[in-house]
Amino acid sequence: MGLFQIHVVTDGQKAAQELAEVVRKVAQAGADAVQLRYKAAPALELYRLAEQLLPVLDGTSTRLLINDRVDVALAVGAHGVHLAAKSLPVDRVRALLPAPMVVGRSVHSLEEALEAQRSGADYVTFGHVFTTRSKPGVPPRGPDDLRRIVESVDIPVLAIGGITPNNAAEAARTGCAGVAVIGAVMGHANPGAALSALARALEASGAAPAHPFRWPAS
Amino acid sequence: MGLFQIHVVTDGQKAAQELAEVVRKVAQAGADAVQLRYKAAPALELYRLAEQLLPVLDGTSTRLLINDRVDVALAVGAHGVHLAAKSLPVDRVRALLPAPMVVGRSVHSLEEALEAQRSGADYVTFGHVFTTRSKPGVPPRGPDDLRRIVESVDIPVLAIGGITPNNAAEAARTGCAGVAVIGAVMGHANPGAALSALARALEASGAAPAHPFRWPAS
Repeated sequence: MGLFQIHVVTDGQKAAQELAEVVRKVAQAGADAVQLRYKAAPALELYRLAEQLLPVLDGTSTRLLINDRVDVALAVGAHGVHLAAKSLPVDRVRALLPAPMVVGRSVHSLEEALEAQRSGADYVTFGHVFTTRSKPGVPPRGPDDLRRIVESVDIPVLAIGGITPNNAAEAARTGCAGVAVIGAVMGHANPGAALSALARALEASGAAPAHPFRWPAS
Repeated sequence: MGLFQIHVVTDGQKAAQELAEVVRKVAQAGADAVQLRYKAAPALELYRLAEQLLPVLDGTSTRLLINDRVDVALAVGAHGVHLAAKSLPVDRVRALLPAPMVVGRSVHSLEEALEAQRSGADYVTFGHVFTTRSKPGVPPRGPDDLRRIVESVDIPVLAIGGITPNNAAEAARTGCAGVAVIGAVMGHANPGAALSALARALEASGAAPAHPFRWPAS
């Protein structure tokens, strides 16, 4: 859609039916990806949920990423995986997945970002950039740290953590490739409108990604 | 080794170093498989643990199976996976894995056993057959139920739950293909001796598996 990616990370608290409805709305509003993150769920539950969401995304340009469970992503035919520090190593996962499936990695430092890039990550998320309810009491890393990482790697960096329409332009001006959001969209009464507001704020920044996110041809 | 399989299921309570030592002992005593089951562990921890255990099994005839996490099994190059009711569906997993990797499934009824067979499971475990500390207050299903399942499917059935050298012959006489044990070996002061005692009891039963367990050539 726009120059900047917007990934919506699920908060794992919604019932399947409600989640499908939110996903439908953010897909219609142009979200680039939905990252299904549901840490407490057994594999079968995550698989069934993903199976329910894929048809909802059908005919939209929104991709489905699965957090941590590479086997669920493969089994359901998702567009990629998003790994955290406690997930399987990026290089092992990259070797397991066909080329059209992307591998993302959460990083919290420049060292981790460089390591993820070396290991074959297609993109990283860095955060939390702004104060967020997801990380109460933990000071945000701020846009300067984000900029330093964007300038040090050659892969797309998505800003995560406390991103709202009010600060999205500030994030965009670091050269990041977009944003990943949880609360700002999942917790919003109107997720589609929340997504559109973010998209407008990013485009209105006048900035452009240093390394644009490109989805592989599938 | 013997006619009957003995699979040792880890109890997920031992530190890595201690677990490696137990695995070394049961491998030397002739265990057919170690099933790494560690439900609370993040993927990376399970992966590192499996990475540590594989060299311990090297040069023995003991295979490594990973419980639930198919991605970890693939990443580390294990010999197969063992699935539970909340794991990915057997048929999806079978489609993801190369032929030399086996797919096992825990079942608790004849219907589940038949379904696992239809879905392509290489073997099932059925239990719990005898009273076990792993399932306090839950009455055991008993050897008659085990026999009914053994007689109804064409794949190997392993007995699980409360198997000891004292009742192993009774299990063996159902025609099952072997046993899977946790406490009887993992909780024993001398895991190698515990495994040997089980093996002797199974062979001394004079019984033979209705459908012997055969590992694919790897």
